[in-house]
Amino acid sequence: MSSTVRIALDVMGGDHGPDVVLPGAEIALTRHPDISYLLFGDAGRINDILKQHPRLAAASTVIHTDVVVRMDDKPSQALRQGRRVSSMWRAIDAVRLGEADCAVSAGNTGALMAMAKVNLKTMAGISRPAIACLWPTTRGESVVLDVGASIGATAQHLVDMAVMGAAMARIVFDIERPTVGLLNVGVEEIKGVEEVKEAAAALRGTGHPGLSYHGFVEGDDIGRGTVDVVVTEGFSGNIALKTAEGTAKQVAEFLRGAINRSFMAKIGYLLARGAFRALREKLDPRKSNGGVFLGLNGVVIKSHGGTDAEGFASAVDIGYDMVRYQLLSRIEAGMNDRPQVAATGPAEATVSGELQVSS
Amino acid sequence: MSSTVRIALDVMGGDHGPDVVLPGAEIALTRHPDISYLLFGDAGRINDILKQHPRLAAASTVIHTDVVVRMDDKPSQALRQGRRVSSMWRAIDAVRLGEADCAVSAGNTGALMAMAKVNLKTMAGISRPAIACLWPTTRGESVVLDVGASIGATAQHLVDMAVMGAAMARIVFDIERPTVGLLNVGVEEIKGVEEVKEAAAALRGTGHPGLSYHGFVEGDDIGRGTVDVVVTEGFSGNIALKTAEGTAKQVAEFLRGAINRSFMAKIGYLLARGAFRALREKLDPRKSNGGVFLGLNGVVIKSHGGTDAEGFASAVDIGYDMVRYQLLSRIEAGMNDRPQVAATGPAEATVSGELQVSS
Repeated sequence: MSSTVRIALDVMGGDHGPDVVLPGAEIALTRHPDISYLLFGDAGRINDILKQHPRLAAASTVIHTDVVVRMDDKPSQALRQGRRVSSMWRAIDAVRLGEADCAVSAGNTGALMAMAKVNLKTMAGISRPAIACLWPTTRGESVVLDVGASIGATAQHLVDMAVMGAAMARIVFDIERPTVGLLNVGVEEIKGVEEVKEAAAALRGTGHPGLSYHGFVEGDDIGRGTVDVVVTEGFSGNIALKTAEGTAKQVAEFLRGAINRSFMAKIGYLLARGAFRALREKLDPRKSNGGVFLGLNGVVIKSHGGTDAEGFASAVDIGYDMVRYQLLSRIEAGMNDRPQVAATGPAEATVSGELQVSS
Repeated sequence: MSSTVRIALDVMGGDHGPDVVLPGAEIALTRHPDISYLLFGDAGRINDILKQHPRLAAASTVIHTDVVVRMDDKPSQALRQGRRVSSMWRAIDAVRLGEADCAVSAGNTGALMAMAKVNLKTMAGISRPAIACLWPTTRGESVVLDVGASIGATAQHLVDMAVMGAAMARIVFDIERPTVGLLNVGVEEIKGVEEVKEAAAALRGTGHPGLSYHGFVEGDDIGRGTVDVVVTEGFSGNIALKTAEGTAKQVAEFLRGAINRSFMAKIGYLLARGAFRALREKLDPRKSNGGVFLGLNGVVIKSHGGTDAEGFASAVDIGYDMVRYQLLSRIEAGMNDRPQVAATGPAEATVSGELQVSS
């Protein structure tokens, strides 16, 4: 294990490309002086900006690429046009070649995932990769996955995601046995989706050393921090994430509007400013910026496309931690003890399809 | 059409039974003097309370029942034990018999849905009922369904839900052609789940008189009020609803905590109290209380189990409106023009399974 953490950056990805990626990289470097960068993109633009960032320049190697994956490219299109020649592909490829320990991109998520799957492939025993995010909760943060890599999941894949998510949580939260919950509708064990129930059965039976299975959790448990790791398939995971982001924004906007409508309220706001700032910081997407691709033969981090330098630095930080604290080895070890889903016959004809929506 | 709206109440349902249901019924009666009630439950308790509510008593008939469906009963259990004899069943049955125009219950949702399905059955052409809720948005409110009646949906069922949700929206919002969106991951038309894409194709082709198809929407579009009606299958719908409720609560709790930690902030809060109150009212679940069961041969409303009298009154109000403005006829009419999903062969092997998670 090299004493330097080598990070490959897709400098051209995201809404602002180098103007955000490079300042962000420097912020992360300040926090982790043992980082060295491979910067993939338009060398002319990059070198121009590096003139203002000598510290970053000293820790970086610039590799020129001509092709940029566009934000609206379909993944298949991006693969066709960007394979081997785009900054996004080259950053991922550097990981495959062993020239970098992780790749970070703020570019087109679907393209990044498509390229990463084709290039790095999934680890042995894992059927599909997942995207995991850090979700702010009342207790601090939780790992939530899959927030959008795939649609639907078999019971075994849900179990695999529990193992992978727990490996990430052990690093991020520095705890031995993170608690894991399966997202479901209605908390009682009988409810919900067949695959989720089968996964629950497999997880319940095991005394897996790297995680502690809690049981089912519902949508409102996520922000409560009921468990350290929340597992669900990618459609509902993405819906949950987007809905929560939208609701937080909606509450903030409404409060802002209500405050602006009244002079007394504006005065009040000024006095309570500290509290509002604390709230904004707590919910700041830039702080939690950084989706981790779990299940590939390499660490890949996805930053929000529209984030600023501070946000991009957060994404780099996560990549750094995943390398420094050996995410891949932990996942491998976790998969060795992986609970197996029992092959079952047709489910009992109980109340399949009916839900107990808690009143 | 009778000039009275006859409402059957499951008085024993919910966390507080008659202590909430009856005062709530009276509040609704104040708003709509043309309501008459059938009150199902423990006659002794009901009559005791009615002594304090002469106005309500004058508008009600009490029918004694012995059996109460418990909040933790499995739906099949509730059906077995409560069929024909419970307050919940009798309220629904009154609708079937034509003795009431709608039924309202704060009891066990799964049991209520199971009983309603068995007793009232679905309307012609509708495969499954859905639960629709009123979701507070930046623009006001949206109808969101299915928030928990079933898990998974065929493309035709999604289309049917669009028609039913639009019928409800025409009543609640008093507009001719509500906009309808299909919940999906990634906004571009190519992304997402096969059934959702097929439903989109069917809705796009139609010039349905009762709705205006907008396209795909994501989780954060719900609270934005991007469309009047959001359609999704019940698992993701329930996750979205619970997640939004949890996030709103989380934001409020955090803000409260941050304010309490500082004297200046507390002063500020007092001054801005009006704004906070406005926010609480806007997001008050009691105001939007009342899930509407769509697709049955009868109007059934589900109130939150833990709500208070004001909240229960809101649920009764919704039932009243659904009857007054002829929800069932509108759904029937909408189903006559219902877009048909084309029978297709296997989906093209494009990027099925890959998602464009917007960056």
